[in-house]
Amino acid sequence: MKENGFPRTVTILGVGLIGASIGRGLLNRGCVKKVVGWGRNSEKLQLAKNLGAISEFSVELKSAVRDADLVVVCVPVRKVAEMVRGAAKFAGHGTLFTDVGSTKKRIVQEIGREDLENACRFVAGHPIAGKEDHSLEASDGELFVGRTTVLTPTEKSDAKDIRCLRHFWESLGSKVLEMTPESHDAALAQTSHLPHVLACVLSKIVPEELYPLAGTGFASTSRVASGGVEVWRDILLENAEALQECLGRAEKEIGQLREMLRNQDEVSLESFLMEAKKKRESLRG
Amino acid sequence: MKENGFPRTVTILGVGLIGASIGRGLLNRGCVKKVVGWGRNSEKLQLAKNLGAISEFSVELKSAVRDADLVVVCVPVRKVAEMVRGAAKFAGHGTLFTDVGSTKKRIVQEIGREDLENACRFVAGHPIAGKEDHSLEASDGELFVGRTTVLTPTEKSDAKDIRCLRHFWESLGSKVLEMTPESHDAALAQTSHLPHVLACVLSKIVPEELYPLAGTGFASTSRVASGGVEVWRDILLENAEALQECLGRAEKEIGQLREMLRNQDEVSLESFLMEAKKKRESLRG
Repeated sequence: MKENGFPRTVTILGVGLIGASIGRGLLNRGCVKKVVGWGRNSEKLQLAKNLGAISEFSVELKSAVRDADLVVVCVPVRKVAEMVRGAAKFAGHGTLFTDVGSTKKRIVQEIGREDLENACRFVAGHPIAGKEDHSLEASDGELFVGRTTVLTPTEKSDAKDIRCLRHFWESLGSKVLEMTPESHDAALAQTSHLPHVLACVLSKIVPEELYPLAGTGFASTSRVASGGVEVWRDILLENAEALQECLGRAEKEIGQLREMLRNQDEVSLESFLMEAKKKRESLRG
Repeated sequence: MKENGFPRTVTILGVGLIGASIGRGLLNRGCVKKVVGWGRNSEKLQLAKNLGAISEFSVELKSAVRDADLVVVCVPVRKVAEMVRGAAKFAGHGTLFTDVGSTKKRIVQEIGREDLENACRFVAGHPIAGKEDHSLEASDGELFVGRTTVLTPTEKSDAKDIRCLRHFWESLGSKVLEMTPESHDAALAQTSHLPHVLACVLSKIVPEELYPLAGTGFASTSRVASGGVEVWRDILLENAEALQECLGRAEKEIGQLREMLRNQDEVSLESFLMEAKKKRESLRG
């Protein structure tokens, strides 16, 4: 660690879109001495190095995490807890771990169940930034600029670890918010997982032979349906409870809309559209 | 009319986004001798003229349509039929009328009920192009380039009228398809009206205080919810039947998704996401 508590050596476990974007952001800005990449595929790691996302790499977890001040776990949500526990065995004493998973409650529970080896510590995080293309090649050192990163510390978290991660994400251009894992997951079910699922429902319903009759509205509303299947399957399963609740509300809204249409109820339909429009417009401001 | 059957003088009734975009496209390309604009507000008409969307204008329907070879009715869907009947009274013998409404079945029924005055003829149309901002100021002469325009002629329509409208829309850069009014409305319920309604449902469900936690996915999926309220109210009411059917399918899909989440059904969820992704990706190609 530097004297200001900023990590000198950052190890990134998993160099896909998010991991490689972090690495590029750090190296482009000269924030750290080195970024070590770990993954199972050495060709992919070499490509990450060529893209300037990491300065060195290893396919061995042990040598990848040994010198890290901070380990950023960028693997799919359902593998985060296992990865943190596994990597802590090889990390230096008191190494800080974080992750970038889109769900937080189960990960935090799982890792908090018992202490990590080597007195390692974990504070969960989630940068709200992404693309449909989850590949290394789509990575971008500016991906986090102007976006929000949520940290979900617990009562056991050290203030200095939270401070370190705040500086870390701010150095990548992100705003940082702190929330409980539960409130994070309830919020993201609405702001991220529900949009994904509605885009998929739309994509599934509309037959391809009608695409010549689809305009920019269909393209925009269905866009995120082209996101990665495994990544999203895991996110939706991890946050199943909160998402079910949102889907219940969506069903209720749709049911009411059908009633309005059946009754040619101009007044209710107009106020429904007006409320939706006003809210959506406030997103821009 | 020119010798090739292309109109020399086009009158546009209603110079909002679509009407003004047609006018700009025609005048930019030098396709016609003049474009006459009609509306209730002379300041708005003057602005349309300043923007190059019309070459002259009148607030009097009579003088606006008198010399037209083609009258393009660009008023909200529920006012189209009345407007066509009203304007035909002042039009020259055998003037061709068309419209740009997002629904077709009721308009075609309504106008087809009895003959128009002065032997005027009507063939309905729908350019599938638009923006959330329906204003004159948002108009763009290139709005129709690469987009599809649907014509919905009936058994009574003249082949030469259909040919004239084909050339008209092609000259603005649009592809042209012919469909029945019924199949048009059933298709657009899926490709346009359902996306709009789902975007509104999403916008309505997510509280504004969560916007700092919304990413580009929410922005994209909810984007069209900021479209004009009156315009969309009328479209949805006009196409209520077909849209109710789509909403029923959406409810069913959402119900199935809730089941998958409740049962942590990885396999079904994965195939749902895969189908949605594959279809959405084929839109790009």
